Amino acid sequence: MNTIPQGLLTPQILVDVDILERNIDRVAQNVAGKGLALRPHAKTHKMHEIAARQLDSGAVGLTVATIGEALTFALHGVADLFVAFPLWVSEVQAARIRKLLRYVRLSLGTDSVAAVEQLARQLGDKANKLGLMIEIDSGHHRSGVHPRGALDVARAARDAGLNVIGIFTFPGHSYAPGRAQEVAAEEQQALAEAAGLLREDGFELKRISGGSTPTAELADNSLLTEVRPGVYVFGDAQQFELGRCRWEDIALSVASTVISRHEGDELIPRRIVLDAGSKILGGDRPAWASGFGRILENPDARISAVSEHHATVLWPEDQPLPAHGEQLRVIPNHVCVAVNLVDQVTVLRAGEVAERWDVAARGLNY
Amino acid sequence: MNTIPQGLLTPQILVDVDILERNIDRVAQNVAGKGLALRPHAKTHKMHEIAARQLDSGAVGLTVATIGEALTFALHGVADLFVAFPLWVSEVQAARIRKLLRYVRLSLGTDSVAAVEQLARQLGDKANKLGLMIEIDSGHHRSGVHPRGALDVARAARDAGLNVIGIFTFPGHSYAPGRAQEVAAEEQQALAEAAGLLREDGFELKRISGGSTPTAELADNSLLTEVRPGVYVFGDAQQFELGRCRWEDIALSVASTVISRHEGDELIPRRIVLDAGSKILGGDRPAWASGFGRILENPDARISAVSEHHATVLWPEDQPLPAHGEQLRVIPNHVCVAVNLVDQVTVLRAGEVAERWDVAARGLNY
Repeated sequence: MNTIPQGLLTPQILVDVDILERNIDRVAQNVAGKGLALRPHAKTHKMHEIAARQLDSGAVGLTVATIGEALTFALHGVADLFVAFPLWVSEVQAARIRKLLRYVRLSLGTDSVAAVEQLARQLGDKANKLGLMIEIDSGHHRSGVHPRGALDVARAARDAGLNVIGIFTFPGHSYAPGRAQEVAAEEQQALAEAAGLLREDGFELKRISGGSTPTAELADNSLLTEVRPGVYVFGDAQQFELGRCRWEDIALSVASTVISRHEGDELIPRRIVLDAGSKILGGDRPAWASGFGRILENPDARISAVSEHHATVLWPEDQPLPAHGEQLRVIPNHVCVAVNLVDQVTVLRAGEVAERWDVAARGLNY
Repeated sequence: MNTIPQGLLTPQILVDVDILERNIDRVAQNVAGKGLALRPHAKTHKMHEIAARQLDSGAVGLTVATIGEALTFALHGVADLFVAFPLWVSEVQAARIRKLLRYVRLSLGTDSVAAVEQLARQLGDKANKLGLMIEIDSGHHRSGVHPRGALDVARAARDAGLNVIGIFTFPGHSYAPGRAQEVAAEEQQALAEAAGLLREDGFELKRISGGSTPTAELADNSLLTEVRPGVYVFGDAQQFELGRCRWEDIALSVASTVISRHEGDELIPRRIVLDAGSKILGGDRPAWASGFGRILENPDARISAVSEHHATVLWPEDQPLPAHGEQLRVIPNHVCVAVNLVDQVTVLRAGEVAERWDVAARGLNY
């Protein structure tokens, strides 16, 4: 990324569209080369302009987390959407799903007999228009049914007249240093076990879907049919520190200004303070991370604390502190939550402000 | 708080207006009784409806964190605003400040000679219309000048024709268990030292401003003239666990639905999963907190993990797991970041949906 354009109010999110497009194309080619379908997770960006680029480069559809996100992308012409979340479908939610079913090919996650029965009850004769994807717990122990329990869920769906089209998992426990390889193997094993049980019982599995950004790279088509990475479009400090993206592939940063600086002494830390806090960076800070994000201009600086409107940055001892008013770019730890904090992003092409994009699905939590 | 109204899509934020109004009145009376002015921090709620209630109950004005927040409240008739943040005033920011100065009494934080000189340069002959508040570091070591450095900043302001009206501090290090008393003493000591030096040099200090929600309760008017608590309007899990708000005073929660449940075994934890994740709760999780928030219906439950759209809840072993589809209310750890994630909140009076309020200043980070 180039320098920060003059005259920007800070803090605000910058997207380098040259890097963004390179990331989208690289992963599209890589996934296609392995004979896998790419269904990127749009919760990361929530923007029509990025969805369009993903579909143009060959994505088969989008993954989303909520019905609200699905409606937003459906109204903008995305024809195939997968809500990778085990929804509990209430009456009011069912009405929104029926609306979606009129316009798009929709698939939905589920992980229990109870949720399947509720879905059938609420959707009535529309229920079989939906593609049901059974969520498998591959070791993350969040949602998802144990592989051995998948058959009960699939049979309940069949009995209720629903259409089971596949299985999926989210190997979220891959978000720790050195874990990607091991977790990719667990992911493969859990899906293989569930797929085996279901096929033996006569289920035809059109889609077997896996892959967080850390494990998608390691995926092959021996079992999986598609992957759903999200963060790869932007990269972030977390992926960089996990060794899953390069510094030069980071497409999103938060322009910020030095508002306070302190040379420090034996009692008080030497530091600068930036005007980017948790209300634009997000508050995510895994135990293994070096801090609350990274500074694009200085890989050796450490963000030791954030509050809502401040980031406290420990500057390398052998380097002079940046001046008051100097602008620096912060790489968020977790880009999905940073994007969800702003209504628009500023888009740079060749270092110049080219456009402003709306975060169209921002805040659509249901 | 009463039960959750029927037919709500989840997750969404609920505000119990009866509790909210009780909190606003209680703190207003408490602060007035001690002879202090109350200038609540509006970054917590960002809503006109709550600002109006605070002013009606005697607040002298509002505290905000950004010029964007100040503009929003100014356009809605708030006449006295304090930006409690050491802004670096760029040319484009100066234009917005000049606009504000036409309509409201505005005070602004600063913590360095450089920022004072920049302010004078950018605002020109309008600079003396502004009330300058010098930020003192009372031990939090974020922004703020050391008490002994305050005089240099004040003199630079005087030399540049600016109007120093007072000093302030944010004792953020009070956000740890058992620290409130000790930190309130540090706050008092730092402000007293700076006030002494400034008064000796001829500065008249009209405002000496302190008080986070944990320390505001302990404040008296022996030195301070005003306090700036924010969180007290809603309370949150963090304040509850710090012993600074009662369970029955918590006015805000996130309605959520059980989407996944697992009885567990020797390898897999017994848990429920709710559809409220870090995109509505925020990701704040101090090391001393019991988890990522609390469950209003069950004080013994523990939120062991959140991801963007999931909260994993460990339910007490001796109690049956809630059913699929059951609705529960999550108390966020840090309410300021939760409110900033939604465009509207649902307002309940006597347990019924009464109104929807806009989070008018949501996302206004600059």
